Amino acid sequence: MPTAVPSQGSPAADSPGAVVDLLGALAYAELSAFDHLADDAGLAPTLGGRAEMSSMAAVEFGHFRRLADRLVELGVDPEAAMTPFVAALETYHSLTKPSTWLESVVKAYVGDGLAADFYREVANFVDDATGSLIREVMTEAGRAEFAVAEVARAIEEQPAVAGRLALWGRRLVGEAISQTQHVLADRDSLTRLFVEAAGDLSGVASMITRITDRHGERMQALGLDS
Amino acid sequence: MPTAVPSQGSPAADSPGAVVDLLGALAYAELSAFDHLADDAGLAPTLGGRAEMSSMAAVEFGHFRRLADRLVELGVDPEAAMTPFVAALETYHSLTKPSTWLESVVKAYVGDGLAADFYREVANFVDDATGSLIREVMTEAGRAEFAVAEVARAIEEQPAVAGRLALWGRRLVGEAISQTQHVLADRDSLTRLFVEAAGDLSGVASMITRITDRHGERMQALGLDS
Repeated sequence: MPTAVPSQGSPAADSPGAVVDLLGALAYAELSAFDHLADDAGLAPTLGGRAEMSSMAAVEFGHFRRLADRLVELGVDPEAAMTPFVAALETYHSLTKPSTWLESVVKAYVGDGLAADFYREVANFVDDATGSLIREVMTEAGRAEFAVAEVARAIEEQPAVAGRLALWGRRLVGEAISQTQHVLADRDSLTRLFVEAAGDLSGVASMITRITDRHGERMQALGLDS
Repeated sequence: MPTAVPSQGSPAADSPGAVVDLLGALAYAELSAFDHLADDAGLAPTLGGRAEMSSMAAVEFGHFRRLADRLVELGVDPEAAMTPFVAALETYHSLTKPSTWLESVVKAYVGDGLAADFYREVANFVDDATGSLIREVMTEAGRAEFAVAEVARAIEEQPAVAGRLALWGRRLVGEAISQTQHVLADRDSLTRLFVEAAGDLSGVASMITRITDRHGERMQALGLDS
């Protein structure tokens, strides 16, 4: 795997290392999302709900395939590119393993939405082909409607559920941030990409604000405090 | 859900009940195949193997979606059509839960291949639209190559594995036959379809022979006694 050694003056985004790391992280994020959504589908109270969550899993697998194909095009073994990110992503999933169907629905919408916003921000600072691919695979078509309907129905039946799910949403954010920090501490090329992408500290702050705002909008759509 | 009351002289295949039962059984077979393949992917020793089996799962989900859509076109709720077949298919999967990666590979190729042959036989005796759909979703493109390569490598490294996997193959067939019999005993419309499709007892015998022969070919391709 190429290592990240950007030449002087060139942005880290131009280094093959940063792009490969980004694609590798994202590819494993999709493969593990597939795995965990397929698993969580087993929590569904109905075959219809199970099919809905399985469908999200299948979509994530399609995204994984496109990202892995792109890595192959770049002459990189997808397995090698993903390996550095396995531990952080599996830790995130093990610390946010849903114990109820509603927790799995909120995770599929809120947790994956948060990750998508993060990757979309980063997509603005890599080469056009990589950026377009990331934006394409980071769509969440249809997922919101399903989650909102499931959660709204549950809250109507049992209002107390809203408080528990709001806490769950906060836990998802906390663990996502924590694992992202671990990855950045570990991968210099991604940290450089991230900081250069944001421009300066105020850029970093406004990126975090944008991501946080969109998270709040999703929680609001679900009828939950963020 | 319409019930199977074929008019006198018309084949059971023309009754909506038989077609709905067939599509319902097949749709649940695909949804549960998705679920179990996604689960078994966790047994893979490498990320590459895990991606390969996850890919099979995603393909099965696409098939499920097409069958469910067809049921909706026929005015039938897919959940209602699948429900009668959940117990038998889950029993099959619980009795054939792979405990090793190689068992999961053999099951994905041999077990699902056997089911596909069975459904393809039945597809010849339903209306053209249903039959074409069944034949389309029952392709196994690419699966053989992957399974053969994995098993061949394992046998080369450790020849004793061949005997254990041959036994495993026999168990897959035994449980598949046993659950098929349970379903047929329970669903008159499918039994009628099946018997009328075969024509007579010698037709049933030759159908079983064809399915058994193809099973033997798959085992042979894997280097295993059937």
